[in-house]
Amino acid sequence: MSFFEILDQIGIITFTISGTRLAFSKKLDPFGALVMGGVTAIGGGTLRDILINQPVFWLQDSIPLISIIIGFGATIAFRKKIVSIKRTLFIFDTIGLGVFLVIGMEKALEANLGPIQAIIIGTMTAVFGGVVRDTLSNEIPLIFRKEMYATTCILGGILYLVLGYLSMPLWFTPLITILTVISLRIISIKLNLSYPQLGNRD
Amino acid sequence: MSFFEILDQIGIITFTISGTRLAFSKKLDPFGALVMGGVTAIGGGTLRDILINQPVFWLQDSIPLISIIIGFGATIAFRKKIVSIKRTLFIFDTIGLGVFLVIGMEKALEANLGPIQAIIIGTMTAVFGGVVRDTLSNEIPLIFRKEMYATTCILGGILYLVLGYLSMPLWFTPLITILTVISLRIISIKLNLSYPQLGNRD
Amino acid sequence: MSFFEILDQIGIITFTISGTRLAFSKKLDPFGALVMGGVTAIGGGTLRDILINQPVFWLQDSIPLISIIIGFGATIAFRKKIVSIKRTLFIFDTIGLGVFLVIGMEKALEANLGPIQAIIIGTMTAVFGGVVRDTLSNEIPLIFRKEMYATTCILGGILYLVLGYLSMPLWFTPLITILTVISLRIISIKLNLSYPQLGNRD
Repeated sequence: MSFFEILDQIGIITFTISGTRLAFSKKLDPFGALVMGGVTAIGGGTLRDILINQPVFWLQDSIPLISIIIGFGATIAFRKKIVSIKRTLFIFDTIGLGVFLVIGMEKALEANLGPIQAIIIGTMTAVFGGVVRDTLSNEIPLIFRKEMYATTCILGGILYLVLGYLSMPLWFTPLITILTVISLRIISIKLNLSYPQLGNRD
Repeated sequence: MSFFEILDQIGIITFTISGTRLAFSKKLDPFGALVMGGVTAIGGGTLRDILINQPVFWLQDSIPLISIIIGFGATIAFRKKIVSIKRTLFIFDTIGLGVFLVIGMEKALEANLGPIQAIIIGTMTAVFGGVVRDTLSNEIPLIFRKEMYATTCILGGILYLVLGYLSMPLWFTPLITILTVISLRIISIKLNLSYPQLGNRD
Repeated sequence: MSFFEILDQIGIITFTISGTRLAFSKKLDPFGALVMGGVTAIGGGTLRDILINQPVFWLQDSIPLISIIIGFGATIAFRKKIVSIKRTLFIFDTIGLGVFLVIGMEKALEANLGPIQAIIIGTMTAVFGGVVRDTLSNEIPLIFRKEMYATTCILGGILYLVLGYLSMPLWFTPLITILTVISLRIISIKLNLSYPQLGNRD
């Protein structure tokens, strides 16, 4: 497996844990939780591949499906720890966010998209699984609600492009971008950062 | 029309009836009911064709659209019977489930996907229309809620693959698979089967 | 820019204003409002391009993204007027509806789809952004609720096909279709037209 393929599996496992954990806290049955975990994990990449007109990654390759089973199994095995600790969802979600941003941008740049489009595709790859998860759970998606969730991706995406122009070693740019996304998320939670609301009330 | 094309129209008509019936019970107007019926009927196949990168079936061929009109007309014509009998939604939904599973798997295998991917695509073809229907109606989709809805498809999908390796006559494998899906659904309703819940409460 | 490209930008700007305005009235933060405006503006065209298997328009071309920024900026700049006047949402939504219907039908006919499919694709282009907007806001989409919203598109689509057969000058057919859609929407609101409900109560 290449460096990016390994990263991809890490993202899939962590997003599966994040989705499965939410499903259990919503009292879905194990099968529903597996589907919810899987959708959270591969929803973003599936949308990305459809938009950039590439073969959908998990149709050609069974490794992502195995990663979903691993993430699901891990949540079941450690569910007392994973489900009860509130911070867990945040940690796994944040690692997945950084990893999927990088993978999505890499694929978009390979498909010769412009820099703005690459950031949008990268951000969609990172957040879309969670949007589907929240929509299916009948909630307004997290991305629209708080904590500069998607803004973090956009800032990470800009950093990724800048580092890319500086011809760093292959592993450097993705690693720094992922660590930056994780740090920005932790900072915005700690400082309780959010945008001001501009609208009126209905 | 080939055997599979006839099956496909049966699935489209029954899913249209299932979707339209739900729309009327939600007090949608006739046009909204037609759209809801149509989305339920062709949503799964549309997702399938997009994922496996085939031309979307109802764009090349108007017969599916005629089948939707037939299903819609039948619901209007017999609406006192169709809408009032609670069991009706279940029956039509279940026939459609089996038929679309078989069609989806057949198309996935033709596109050279692996067996696990074929089961996933077949199950998506069968359940996605209903997921969109429920999401648009602002409900948590049925698939996540009860009665081993999607599990039935997966079991049916495994049977379909096994029978396929035994080189049965063309009509035998789909027919047995569809009848098995219908039987499994009836059994799981009668016995009130469901998965245990593993999660904690929020 | 060609005539249709100019029309497209008008539709994107008006739909962005419509989506952003709703987001502010739902108290989303500015970034969430930008995403909601953007999804409303390009959701329909994205679905269209995926269904007819064309490159997604905003991936090849940054002008639509600039139009979203313009629409978003206009809503912020004039938000006291735009957000408070109830009629504003209606006006911008209706202009976008007519424009996107025409663009969607034009692209579908170029892709050699049949007339019924062209009307469906045109109507989807016009209404799908709003459906996603409403689903993400956790509401039953407007299209299913009232005022013959989608019916207007279908009538406009039929008119577009009829005028197309009469070989009018290039600008005439789209312009008359868009004006007809706007007029039909105003009439159906003024006369409070809606379909009778046929269903029973649950």
